[in-house]
Amino acid sequence: MKKSYLFTPGPTSVPPEALKEMSRPIFHHRTTRYRKMFENITDSLKKLFRTENDVLTFTSSGSGAMEASVVNLLSSGDKVITVNGGKFGERWGNICRIYGVDVIEIKTEWGASVNPCQVEEILKQGCNNEIQAVFVTLSETSTGVVNDVKSIAEIVAKTPAVLVVDAISGLGADDIRTDDWHVDVLITGSQKGLMIPPGLAFASVSEKAWGKIVKSSLPKFYFDMEKARKSLISFDTPYTPATSLIRGLKVVLDMIHDEGVDNVIARHAKYAKASRAAVKAMGLELFAPDSPSNAVTAVKVPEGIDGDSLIKHLLDEYGIQVAGGQAHLKGKIIRFAHLGYYDRFDVIMVLSGIEMGLKDIGYDISLGCGIKAAEELLVG
Amino acid sequence: MKKSYLFTPGPTSVPPEALKEMSRPIFHHRTTRYRKMFENITDSLKKLFRTENDVLTFTSSGSGAMEASVVNLLSSGDKVITVNGGKFGERWGNICRIYGVDVIEIKTEWGASVNPCQVEEILKQGCNNEIQAVFVTLSETSTGVVNDVKSIAEIVAKTPAVLVVDAISGLGADDIRTDDWHVDVLITGSQKGLMIPPGLAFASVSEKAWGKIVKSSLPKFYFDMEKARKSLISFDTPYTPATSLIRGLKVVLDMIHDEGVDNVIARHAKYAKASRAAVKAMGLELFAPDSPSNAVTAVKVPEGIDGDSLIKHLLDEYGIQVAGGQAHLKGKIIRFAHLGYYDRFDVIMVLSGIEMGLKDIGYDISLGCGIKAAEELLVG
Repeated sequence: MKKSYLFTPGPTSVPPEALKEMSRPIFHHRTTRYRKMFENITDSLKKLFRTENDVLTFTSSGSGAMEASVVNLLSSGDKVITVNGGKFGERWGNICRIYGVDVIEIKTEWGASVNPCQVEEILKQGCNNEIQAVFVTLSETSTGVVNDVKSIAEIVAKTPAVLVVDAISGLGADDIRTDDWHVDVLITGSQKGLMIPPGLAFASVSEKAWGKIVKSSLPKFYFDMEKARKSLISFDTPYTPATSLIRGLKVVLDMIHDEGVDNVIARHAKYAKASRAAVKAMGLELFAPDSPSNAVTAVKVPEGIDGDSLIKHLLDEYGIQVAGGQAHLKGKIIRFAHLGYYDRFDVIMVLSGIEMGLKDIGYDISLGCGIKAAEELLVG
Repeated sequence: MKKSYLFTPGPTSVPPEALKEMSRPIFHHRTTRYRKMFENITDSLKKLFRTENDVLTFTSSGSGAMEASVVNLLSSGDKVITVNGGKFGERWGNICRIYGVDVIEIKTEWGASVNPCQVEEILKQGCNNEIQAVFVTLSETSTGVVNDVKSIAEIVAKTPAVLVVDAISGLGADDIRTDDWHVDVLITGSQKGLMIPPGLAFASVSEKAWGKIVKSSLPKFYFDMEKARKSLISFDTPYTPATSLIRGLKVVLDMIHDEGVDNVIARHAKYAKASRAAVKAMGLELFAPDSPSNAVTAVKVPEGIDGDSLIKHLLDEYGIQVAGGQAHLKGKIIRFAHLGYYDRFDVIMVLSGIEMGLKDIGYDISLGCGIKAAEELLVG
């Protein structure tokens, strides 16, 4: 008997209740039955985003919603700031450049968060308030870093620029308060904290952002936010949505609100803290010690051990799937999520797997030491 | 006891085997297990498309794949021909204009197919072979018309233009032979003949089309076909795919190939023919009598009867969902699909519902007359 355990930072495990709902017979989406469900879902998403703004739903991966933000807010030649502290922060710049947007990229070392003062400095330097938008990542999935979006938002709110936040892996794990903090566009995907399979992406849009959107001249069709907003009036989408995923979404959003958003965030914070304590107790080094995300923990692989071999061993021997490093971090870190449909024994299992896996491949570890540290934070 | 019956031309009913598969626990897509499945699926799609060309998979509705065709093949200012014989043919022109493409639109009356000679004439008029692409619809879902793609393809193949065919509702119902007929880009969606929920779209791309794609200067990110082609080498996609739908796709493609593509098309042709015979026997008029699609039958609502009331009555009283007319046809036609997971008793049920529904709302009909005509074509 070997079960399968998914601890990648997306896709994450889907609750059986949602899997069951998604296996029910298809019904048509241009019906009262569907519209009622979609109205309820949109309200639930707003509560999760902590916003009164419209939340738009797209059938795409999270990257689709990233592109949607760029093409709806901007025009060719516009100047923007992007924060690049990993693979996903880098993506903001890539998308903007494709559309002829002038990118000022703040590069931070992978594993470190951005210093909000850097954003402030560039915004101040910009003559005539020429910066149109600032693009940042809440939880940078490739490094396990959480950025200080609250401080960045406070800075951006004082300027005519809009703040766009990629919360694809962050929403539901790291605290984010769209309206209180003045986040103009917050995007996320379905397969992370939202606990359903990949295929849906979401974007909340502030009035300040709509002010830019009506002036944007970049071409868009499938990801047109004005069309999506217009359809939302009758709880519809411009194009056929992924209806089975929408039905699963209803189930997980009800679960999230039954637990309470604050409690959900606190749970993720607790499991992240326990994970870090355990990793340190194993004698390992955290990759992002100063600003760790609640969604994913990145761990440096000890000298002499190949991270990718460890990952393969965990999967083959223990049925445990974790993620490796991307780009120059390949083989050098492992990343495991504590994200979404996840309780304390998921923490225990992934840590136990890592302890045993490390022992198997020759790392000098006292078995159980990480689990002890974790249990001390998980007990009661 | 009142069951629910979905006879809309997409989404169509999903086989229980596929629903069950999609309710199985999530696994990660950057794994050997997934790549093997996706390799198998891509081969199966090629067999269904009747092509040796690459078939690319996008997580989006079919409209996303329509936009993908435009932004990957063309540059701003390019001249193209679009065929507009309904809501979906019209969409080709809308997308092209958004991207600054110069559109020569052939408008055909709704309910009629395009005369291929019209395409030929415009291609001949174009100086220096300036037309870059021709965009047509195989089965125009809004009218129930099938276009003569074979003849159009023969004409386009002799020019430097590429032929792009929207087979979103047509593939698996109306005959289409991508390679034999020289269709350069064939697109489809998941929720029609492919019998799974909405959320996936596909595009096959010929070498002639790749020749245009490498020269295209329109901006693209999420729908970038060159990136998709590169990822396909390792049976991957550039962005996280809708993995649960992909798993369902494996099941339905196996079903399609077990039946055989020729048999699948023949089955659709038979049910479409029986549907039309029944409708005529009920004294009703077909909306597209001359070039009816195998996917959907459009029927004129008799004088004095409001189509939308009939549709509502069928749903409320009989649990049968059919579609109405779009745009200027609202209330004037009803459309019902014989598409995908559909056997002869589905034909019988929808026709029986229509007979009884018409009787209920005061239309003078001899009950059973349509069924008799259908059974004569379905027996044995």
